[in-house]
Amino acid sequence: MRLALSLAAEAAAEGEVPVGAVIVKDGRVIGTGRNRRETDKDALAHAEIEAIHMACRTLGGWRLSGSTLYVTLEPCPMCAGAIINARIDRVVMGTVDPKAGSCGSVTDLFALPYNHRPEVSAGVLEEDCRAALQQFFKCLRKRHKVTEEET
Amino acid sequence: MRLALSLAAEAAAEGEVPVGAVIVKDGRVIGTGRNRRETDKDALAHAEIEAIHMACRTLGGWRLSGSTLYVTLEPCPMCAGAIINARIDRVVMGTVDPKAGSCGSVTDLFALPYNHRPEVSAGVLEEDCRAALQQFFKCLRKRHKVTEEET
Repeated sequence: MRLALSLAAEAAAEGEVPVGAVIVKDGRVIGTGRNRRETDKDALAHAEIEAIHMACRTLGGWRLSGSTLYVTLEPCPMCAGAIINARIDRVVMGTVDPKAGSCGSVTDLFALPYNHRPEVSAGVLEEDCRAALQQFFKCLRKRHKVTEEET
Repeated sequence: MRLALSLAAEAAAEGEVPVGAVIVKDGRVIGTGRNRRETDKDALAHAEIEAIHMACRTLGGWRLSGSTLYVTLEPCPMCAGAIINARIDRVVMGTVDPKAGSCGSVTDLFALPYNHRPEVSAGVLEEDCRAALQQFFKCLRKRHKVTEEET
């Protein structure tokens, strides 16, 4: 999760909402990702998606069975669905997302009868993950305020 | 939907489950996609994802507001989530997917309180869309049977 947090910090440095993700299998990092939605101008450029793409390339196949995904923020429905499709066994998340989180917040896709049900653990380095997001949005509001005052 | 069906046929010709998707905005096709999961060895290579990627590139931004996605099969949770994230206004689907469909079958992600709720219409060229899938799986079973008998 420390590595996921450092990826989230990289995203924040580029003006992206700070979310980072890491996929581990047999003690080895097989995929990493961070949010790049604004930079890439792509609705799908979430941290988990980038990490899953990389992990599929690393393993040379689309089944990521036996792997664990660490992510700083609760996955949205797209990413939770991607985790199911990739057959990832376990998801460890930092902080929850009451607005879009789909592993227990808005809904729990992992509890529905799809053909794969990953396990999920929440609250790992929760304070740090939440603080990274709060700090980012605080800066964003401050910057918008300055811009408004300047214009 | 005819174009989506021809993309599905291209997928089938490459041994992929036949699913095709097309995104239209202001009467213009801005994105197309077909299932490439086996060819690309990527859990995320669904038709809708490819079409959304292309549409974001075409428009030069991640918001696809004002657009309609035509897809031969009801979207899975990943693709339904991607449709929400991309702010696609309307989804027109051919046939339903009782096992993974997430626009009314296993769940209805578009009825949940996310920040965007696309409209959905089902049953457009339903027979053709279902027949394409049935034909594909019939051939697959036949081929597996022949292989079993040969070995």
